[in-house]
Amino acid sequence: MTENRVYNFNPGPAAIPVEVLKEIQEEFLNFKGSGMSITEISHRSKPFDDVINDAIERTKRLLNLDNRFNVLFIQGGASMQFCMVPMNFLADGGSADYVNTGTWATKAIKEAQLLKKDIKIVASSEDKNFSYIPDNIRFSPDAVYVHVTSNNTIKGTQFSTFPDTGGVPIISDMSSDIMSRPLDMNKFGLIYAGAQKNLGPAGVCMVIIRDDLLEKVPDTLPSMLKYTTYSSKNSLYNTPPSFAIYTVQLVLKWLEEKIGGLKKIEEINKKKAAILYDYFDGTDFYRGTAEKNSRSLMNVTFRLPSEDLEKTFVEKATQNGMVGLKGHRSVGGCRASIYNAMPIKGIEALVDFMKVFESKNG
Amino acid sequence: MTENRVYNFNPGPAAIPVEVLKEIQEEFLNFKGSGMSITEISHRSKPFDDVINDAIERTKRLLNLDNRFNVLFIQGGASMQFCMVPMNFLADGGSADYVNTGTWATKAIKEAQLLKKDIKIVASSEDKNFSYIPDNIRFSPDAVYVHVTSNNTIKGTQFSTFPDTGGVPIISDMSSDIMSRPLDMNKFGLIYAGAQKNLGPAGVCMVIIRDDLLEKVPDTLPSMLKYTTYSSKNSLYNTPPSFAIYTVQLVLKWLEEKIGGLKKIEEINKKKAAILYDYFDGTDFYRGTAEKNSRSLMNVTFRLPSEDLEKTFVEKATQNGMVGLKGHRSVGGCRASIYNAMPIKGIEALVDFMKVFESKNG
Repeated sequence: MTENRVYNFNPGPAAIPVEVLKEIQEEFLNFKGSGMSITEISHRSKPFDDVINDAIERTKRLLNLDNRFNVLFIQGGASMQFCMVPMNFLADGGSADYVNTGTWATKAIKEAQLLKKDIKIVASSEDKNFSYIPDNIRFSPDAVYVHVTSNNTIKGTQFSTFPDTGGVPIISDMSSDIMSRPLDMNKFGLIYAGAQKNLGPAGVCMVIIRDDLLEKVPDTLPSMLKYTTYSSKNSLYNTPPSFAIYTVQLVLKWLEEKIGGLKKIEEINKKKAAILYDYFDGTDFYRGTAEKNSRSLMNVTFRLPSEDLEKTFVEKATQNGMVGLKGHRSVGGCRASIYNAMPIKGIEALVDFMKVFESKNG
Repeated sequence: MTENRVYNFNPGPAAIPVEVLKEIQEEFLNFKGSGMSITEISHRSKPFDDVINDAIERTKRLLNLDNRFNVLFIQGGASMQFCMVPMNFLADGGSADYVNTGTWATKAIKEAQLLKKDIKIVASSEDKNFSYIPDNIRFSPDAVYVHVTSNNTIKGTQFSTFPDTGGVPIISDMSSDIMSRPLDMNKFGLIYAGAQKNLGPAGVCMVIIRDDLLEKVPDTLPSMLKYTTYSSKNSLYNTPPSFAIYTVQLVLKWLEEKIGGLKKIEEINKKKAAILYDYFDGTDFYRGTAEKNSRSLMNVTFRLPSEDLEKTFVEKATQNGMVGLKGHRSVGGCRASIYNAMPIKGIEALVDFMKVFESKNG
């Protein structure tokens, strides 16, 4: 590993491709010959326009977006989207369906309720501690949108396919699996993703929004809280989080040019997750916590025979250069977050370590 | 200059001390021996706690804040504060006074009006194209707060002292002059500052808020839009813009340890501005646009005899390694933004260039 770097299994902020980090480091004092750092250049300059436009164009190519879709960069993370979505689309009444698949979906629901919007929880996997993705959901035909969390970072579950909503646009929090696989965008009205898992550093949220949803945005909202402010100014209404957008651009370039796009990364991600899940399925020492057909390709959650062993496991792994394996503080256990930037050899190193740990403690 | 770096007179994003940029560059692949970049480490880790807490403690020391004050980091820039301030403090009715000293103050006023809040514009310098800071303002004794923009980046004016509001707390947008001079914090209930001028990169806004104002925040606001969410979680309710906060921390360290604090930087800033203003006052070729007693120490706005000359001036300056001297697109002319990170030798280089330009074109 480069310069004593570790394998980073953090759930987010998470690993960034080392090639990207090196490019940032190299040009950090002098961006593209400007004589300034990327952190010092004007957001109203040609060099920055090139950065943001390249990030947008790469997003469009990677996700195969047609020209109904707008790519925006907004601050505040997915948590800000939890309130912006109902503020923008349920302003004139109307109701929305929400699917509750865990902590983040629950938070999205709470924010809509705080705003006293009319929302319906049409499905929930809370009955089994959010260990599965509900299916056969009956959606409301007159809903303005259906909100789903595509991947549940904390519980380790993921929608492998998206439900048929009868034409109601899906709005999806994809913070933890955006750009991890191809998408059929025809189902979606809006997707949003905090960058700090699969796209880059914390501090920017990518929002992809379809034209017809932009038309629903009321003029009366504060400027910073309406999507039209961002879509009408190419996300440059005010000073954008320029360093974060720049890093996202470099990560997308890596994904497109080095990896070869979303089909390719999906293959790699499936292979990575399979190495871990196959290992779980052949041992009783490690137990996956998500139901098999709901397993996430991004966040692999598992338990060991005891909490003491889990603690030791995380400590020993850290000593062996594998960090971030502790489960979320709300659920305990262990979790390996294996986003796009985690190489296969990181997974192999982890499984090798797990085998040794099992043989010593099993 | 280091590695062909230029003198950066950009209004924001703006110059960052080169020592800070070098430190970031050096540890970019491996932050404090963690084996990860600062962009990859968990915001719930000891290393990041050290970063954010150090930034807060330095802010408290630099501004001599007593324990009534809370230092928060919020996304969305000053523009997000334009709506958060009235949402948080005028929720139960009540009215606020606003002073209009230019573009940004006007935007703050518009956002409060969009929210249909009861606000009063108690003073404005619009009658003279915002070229001065109003005085002898009659404030409303029952106002919840008085909003002022301490420094007007576009018009080049600045409050040299803050008005007596009869005990009503001042809320000030200090995006372009925070940490440029000592402040008597007893007058202020809240100050906010987008980081990208005097504090670091774009993507984070520092908010300093007094306890009694936190008590006014209604529970019913969306979580990401109420100050109490940030104050109760040390700005870690959700993933913060960690790289931006880290850079702010390093800039504050530079200001405290290398420069020696706010009294010292004020001396330097006064000296820097005086070099430019004294030169204007001795020539008819360059004309300062702000009234003398309202001149900003941060943004020095000026005109040349013609728009053609202004264009040539900006071009030639750029060729000579001095960038960002064009005035804001809404007002034209020229502007030298000389925030804390601009060294005196940058000002001297600019004046030398100006003299030569005058002698050739005057």
